[in-house]
Amino acid sequence: MEESKESEPMKALWLENNQISLREIPQPNNPNEALIKIRRAGICSTDLELVKGYYPYTGVLGHEFVGEVVNASDPAWIGQRVVGEINAACGKCEACLNGRPSHCEVRTVLGITNRDGVFAEYTTLPIGNLHRVPDSVSDEVAVFTEPLAAALEIQQQTHIKPTDRVLLVGAGRLGQLIAQTLALTGCDLRVLTRHSYQRDMLSARGIRFIPEAEIQPRKWDVVVEATGSPEGFNLARKAIRPRGTLVMKSTYAGNITINLSSIVVDEITVVGSRCGPFEPALRLLERREVDPTVLLSAQYTLAESIKAFDHAAQSGVLKVQIEI
Amino acid sequence: MEESKESEPMKALWLENNQISLREIPQPNNPNEALIKIRRAGICSTDLELVKGYYPYTGVLGHEFVGEVVNASDPAWIGQRVVGEINAACGKCEACLNGRPSHCEVRTVLGITNRDGVFAEYTTLPIGNLHRVPDSVSDEVAVFTEPLAAALEIQQQTHIKPTDRVLLVGAGRLGQLIAQTLALTGCDLRVLTRHSYQRDMLSARGIRFIPEAEIQPRKWDVVVEATGSPEGFNLARKAIRPRGTLVMKSTYAGNITINLSSIVVDEITVVGSRCGPFEPALRLLERREVDPTVLLSAQYTLAESIKAFDHAAQSGVLKVQIEI
Repeated sequence: MEESKESEPMKALWLENNQISLREIPQPNNPNEALIKIRRAGICSTDLELVKGYYPYTGVLGHEFVGEVVNASDPAWIGQRVVGEINAACGKCEACLNGRPSHCEVRTVLGITNRDGVFAEYTTLPIGNLHRVPDSVSDEVAVFTEPLAAALEIQQQTHIKPTDRVLLVGAGRLGQLIAQTLALTGCDLRVLTRHSYQRDMLSARGIRFIPEAEIQPRKWDVVVEATGSPEGFNLARKAIRPRGTLVMKSTYAGNITINLSSIVVDEITVVGSRCGPFEPALRLLERREVDPTVLLSAQYTLAESIKAFDHAAQSGVLKVQIEI
Repeated sequence: MEESKESEPMKALWLENNQISLREIPQPNNPNEALIKIRRAGICSTDLELVKGYYPYTGVLGHEFVGEVVNASDPAWIGQRVVGEINAACGKCEACLNGRPSHCEVRTVLGITNRDGVFAEYTTLPIGNLHRVPDSVSDEVAVFTEPLAAALEIQQQTHIKPTDRVLLVGAGRLGQLIAQTLALTGCDLRVLTRHSYQRDMLSARGIRFIPEAEIQPRKWDVVVEATGSPEGFNLARKAIRPRGTLVMKSTYAGNITINLSSIVVDEITVVGSRCGPFEPALRLLERREVDPTVLLSAQYTLAESIKAFDHAAQSGVLKVQIEI
């Protein structure tokens, strides 16, 4: 049966030499992994950066998805609606054996590093990467599990106290999810935004924004930088108080010049933060503590996915989803 | 009585326009602070950097000392042999009221910022900055309380587990004290040294060093950077494992260019670390768990203090003390 699947073609959005194109490629065939029929996928900033060529990658793009398991070594998974962690680990290296599979040194990353992604009819992932989606969580909501988990990674790494004054710099795709999860801690949260539609989204949830001119320097217990630009770091650095914690969620190409001595003198803690835990993200979605659908700007079919990428790259557009 | 002290002269080592000179200046007179007769003081890297003009300062140099209280509003302190925390805080600002007096925004710093230091016959400090020195701790050992406290600040900020693989980059004045305190945790410690005399000092205490070529990249749970140079940071960055903690003890002039995205992707925590707690430092000295005297290269009198600075600036010289 798997033999026949190997030869069956499927549609996929392929990235090669900074160009995306719709292609017919063979369905994936990996008997060690679950075969997943993609139901819906989301376009992330990382996808847009991959297309710009900021990181080298050739293959099927996409890593935010919800799908249905159609083949798996454990039959209990077949028919399950799932989301999937994007780092596929070896299980044997020092990082894996020490409980850090997302930092496995030979990991592949769905749609990002040596592993075809989810803007396609099918993908495969190790069963260990999969999480069942509760029935009450819709497909369009479930696609936000991965970025919501990335938002929760902040609290996985850094203790946010209810009394903390927290500044979030950036209110884009990831920033809005971070704002919603930080607000749940009860902390005194302010968000620095760039656009009025970002402020409207925050206001609708009772989250307070702050104009840049009103950000008191050296006063904030925790500052989260999620702008995706180097300027965000410098702004965050000015705002953080001595012995405060600066959480960095942005990745961008290139280097930045900083004064390390001032970080020593002020005893700042800088925490790099990336992928996060799926189960708590699914719990928050199931309980409707977080509403990611406010981010949804548009949806397209897989056949329209090049148009979807053009749309996602426009200023003011947050999440664009692709129905497969 | 204090009136008369104001007019009495004393000898002091004065820094002005990158020049140190021995001067006669009036004895300090601050009725709100304890008057301390300096017994012995130590020359620190920061003193050498101040002379080089890396930071602006005019006044009496020096911040590592042991002395005797000769006047204080609380008579119980008079006659006590003491060491003193170097940051004099206002007690009223947000940092002070939140338990971070060493980060008081209007603090003065002994011999460093707006407060005459200890290469002099007398200095003053608030009583709250003072710590009694146990009788069994000699003057020459007690002078090391301040740098030993700075070494302990690492463990005040970062949980060093007994199972951690810890790399210390740098084995100079501060590095040797850090090596001795880290070794007490039982962690698997290796020290990167530059000079054979540094290795000899470590070996004498059973602390293991490691050649640069043998430092496995991306493998160390905790890396402490104490070289005082920007190259140290890059070396530490290469050694730290994903989700590891990089503790920075070095201050140096100028900026450094780093790849922040890689810190996000590897989820590194970078911790700036400066002054530390005096009481635990005194406890370790009293119990002889740490032996700072191995660092003692030479001692001079106050009259010879310019010669002492020349000596301290030479390569291979660790701690030079001045008997007042």
